Amino acid sequence: MQDQNQDLKLIKDSQREMILLGQSSALLSWDQETYMPVDAVNSRAEQLALIDKLIHEKLISEELSGAIGNLNKSELSEIDQIMIKRLSHDISIAKKLPLDLVEELSRASSIGHSYWKKAKEGNNFLIFEPHLKKMVELRRKEAEYIGLSGHPYNSLIDKFEEGMTIEKIEVIFEKLKNGLIKLLEEIKNSEKYKMERKSLIKGKDFPRDKQIELAADVVKRMGLENNFFRMDHSAHPFTTRTGTQDTRITISVRDNPLFSFTSAIHEGGHALYECGYHKDFEYTVLDDAPSLGIHESQSRFWENIVGLSKPFWKFYFDKFDEAFNIEGEFEEWYGEVNEISPTLIRTESDEIHYCLHVILRTEIEKGLIEGSIEVKDLPRIWNEKMKEYIGIVPETDTKGVLQDVHWSGGLFGYFPTYAIGTIYSAQLLAAIKKDIPDMEDFILEGEYSKIREWLNEKVHVHGRKYLADDIIKDVCGEGLNSDVFLEYLRKKYSEIYEF
Amino acid sequence: MQDQNQDLKLIKDSQREMILLGQSSALLSWDQETYMPVDAVNSRAEQLALIDKLIHEKLISEELSGAIGNLNKSELSEIDQIMIKRLSHDISIAKKLPLDLVEELSRASSIGHSYWKKAKEGNNFLIFEPHLKKMVELRRKEAEYIGLSGHPYNSLIDKFEEGMTIEKIEVIFEKLKNGLIKLLEEIKNSEKYKMERKSLIKGKDFPRDKQIELAADVVKRMGLENNFFRMDHSAHPFTTRTGTQDTRITISVRDNPLFSFTSAIHEGGHALYECGYHKDFEYTVLDDAPSLGIHESQSRFWENIVGLSKPFWKFYFDKFDEAFNIEGEFEEWYGEVNEISPTLIRTESDEIHYCLHVILRTEIEKGLIEGSIEVKDLPRIWNEKMKEYIGIVPETDTKGVLQDVHWSGGLFGYFPTYAIGTIYSAQLLAAIKKDIPDMEDFILEGEYSKIREWLNEKVHVHGRKYLADDIIKDVCGEGLNSDVFLEYLRKKYSEIYEF
Repeated sequence: MQDQNQDLKLIKDSQREMILLGQSSALLSWDQETYMPVDAVNSRAEQLALIDKLIHEKLISEELSGAIGNLNKSELSEIDQIMIKRLSHDISIAKKLPLDLVEELSRASSIGHSYWKKAKEGNNFLIFEPHLKKMVELRRKEAEYIGLSGHPYNSLIDKFEEGMTIEKIEVIFEKLKNGLIKLLEEIKNSEKYKMERKSLIKGKDFPRDKQIELAADVVKRMGLENNFFRMDHSAHPFTTRTGTQDTRITISVRDNPLFSFTSAIHEGGHALYECGYHKDFEYTVLDDAPSLGIHESQSRFWENIVGLSKPFWKFYFDKFDEAFNIEGEFEEWYGEVNEISPTLIRTESDEIHYCLHVILRTEIEKGLIEGSIEVKDLPRIWNEKMKEYIGIVPETDTKGVLQDVHWSGGLFGYFPTYAIGTIYSAQLLAAIKKDIPDMEDFILEGEYSKIREWLNEKVHVHGRKYLADDIIKDVCGEGLNSDVFLEYLRKKYSEIYEF
Repeated sequence: MQDQNQDLKLIKDSQREMILLGQSSALLSWDQETYMPVDAVNSRAEQLALIDKLIHEKLISEELSGAIGNLNKSELSEIDQIMIKRLSHDISIAKKLPLDLVEELSRASSIGHSYWKKAKEGNNFLIFEPHLKKMVELRRKEAEYIGLSGHPYNSLIDKFEEGMTIEKIEVIFEKLKNGLIKLLEEIKNSEKYKMERKSLIKGKDFPRDKQIELAADVVKRMGLENNFFRMDHSAHPFTTRTGTQDTRITISVRDNPLFSFTSAIHEGGHALYECGYHKDFEYTVLDDAPSLGIHESQSRFWENIVGLSKPFWKFYFDKFDEAFNIEGEFEEWYGEVNEISPTLIRTESDEIHYCLHVILRTEIEKGLIEGSIEVKDLPRIWNEKMKEYIGIVPETDTKGVLQDVHWSGGLFGYFPTYAIGTIYSAQLLAAIKKDIPDMEDFILEGEYSKIREWLNEKVHVHGRKYLADDIIKDVCGEGLNSDVFLEYLRKKYSEIYEF
């Protein structure tokens, strides 16, 4: 028992050190996107690479694996057993990859990123093509080393969505795709859709300071207080956790004031998750979310389910009107905020088109990893799928296959989590309505504490104790199910488009 | 030769890693003082402690010492020989201290800091006394372990001012003290000193944004550009280097606009030093200043020699007048900026009183370390020395012995470097005047590039290649000499006070 305690102490100390280094690395990255002078980029990359190396070395150390091996697991508390299980999972993945592959991936990723940027800026896919090809090859190798059962893509998905497989995803996404396309047809056929309407946003001026004030207001109402939270500015919005009581988001202020506002809500949803893990999990692998999909369910719940809802805007319309002098009525504004219209760019798309963008990418990724799609054919395939799912085709690759940063860093398996989170968010809505039937009344008053507490109790507090889909099963009675999401969309948009 | 190269590579890689970790640690500290949410303080302390531990472990590692031991030093280039000498010096100091003493010092320092704060806030020295006593004991132990020759205080001074001893300092400081007191007498006896004059600053309003604009203007004119530099805000101004091309200062905006402005100049002087090391020294121990004293010579040169000079204010007076509507003439303003008047607080004192404050602390520190002064007698001894050197006595310990943070962290041996730097700054003035006789003409036009380039070429570029006093000897023809400083003061203030 003495040895058991010593081994457990070593295991906990190791996790603590890895997490402290991870937080330090998060601060270095946060600073890089917010305040860092441009010429610092090289030493910052080296600082980050070193700290990541130190974390990796600690994770695969003989000392740590030895201590885990020594444990008599049946004598551990339930929570320690789960902690050891998650930690062992991380170690086994890390150990499967030869160090030279890890280094090659890291190098290819930073080179890929710079060539992707050039290709996007110059609208020239050929600049990016050889690097993407290399990246696909390396990730296929990685998938082989990880070697999960089923499709090779599973080994890549699992890093972001533990326990999820492309086999499961495809069934759900197929139903989702058909349902979304059908719903879009109905909307397009509605009288309301065909009506001409003036925009209350386009071409108008929305002062920067007012945009920032409104973003700060909404995250404060969500429960993010300045003693453990910050909101700063970066080119692309993100959320990070740089300490145990230190979670930060960034927003980006653009012409359309909905961009800064809804991204504050989106990132605020991520931030509440990061702030909400059980205190007992601090400095262990359980002090984390089980997957990106469930993380996204929180951001999408706040951004869409709450932040695009009628009661939400009934509260915020007056504030927007006061700040910007909106030249129109509430109903017009609410209609514009929820306007359904195809866009070339995923991050600018509405609630219905969004998942079609994600499905397009998921299908392409699967094809690339299994070898049924070749990198050189991507621009053509991209445009064909855009035509088929979204109904419009980009005139340039910059607004097409080159629009997203993910593939430049070899992030295959990441995209599906955006749609998984979006589906989960609607499933959570169905569940919360049963527990808080008067939820809309609170939202009408800009009062979100009951919602925050419910999400915390049902999702956040568990950290990484359970797999994502098991949390959803427990809260919603079933795992990932796109029907609930389709029902939510149909109810909302049949009302807006009056069909 | 193959082995030699391998050993050298290991030594350079180790330095690189220690420096990258040091930069990361600097960013964590910078963030703590500027943007960090308050509740993050505990995890931040743990992040910093871990990174410091990793650096220390690397410095005292058998691997590194082994590689150094293997080297055939005579086969190394001159610069590598010096690099190995400096690195070996750092290793030998680090290895002399038992790990439990290092940890005890670190713990006592953070506890001491919190009790010092309470004692200062409550004007109660007794709260701080036992912690300071403990700290003195630990530093005496440390001095014993380091064991340099001569006075035990030398072992503490050497950490901040390599090669300097209390024996050398005392001779200089004694002459300086007598000279300063004599000069003060002459000023006090002047007619000008006795004349009543109205303040152009006290009781007036100096808007925050204008103060920040002027501070940003002066550091830009000094040559600090936004691509490798930042200026932020913190309670107490400081300079830090968070990456190879990433140096940052902070300012603090207070009622008196001279505070933010002169501290921007002061920290700007430090920042130029940090930006100026020879590029070949990157990621080695030579990419650093040889001492705090010579570092301070740069900040004091810019703050006092340049920033309190007549031509400097001839350029900046109009800008201040435009920003704040100064209700007075240039000569009045220049007189007020350079007003000689005793203050209780070191950081608020004028050019003449400043070093007397430092000498007072140095004498006390020497007494504490050798045991001739006891901690319990500090308030009395402080006040006696204040009476003797400055001519005024604080009514409270808050404004007396408790005013500075340094002793709470056991920083004994640090204070003398403030006066050393101040003396060096006047020696550098005498030297630069020979090389750039028309220096004042440039200053009159707000054009400092020639001065910056001279300081870079004579001081900054050498990094830690030479000891501080050797750099000064080379540039000025002699080492630390307070006579040159006294001459500078006499010339300047006999003009201002007309005696």
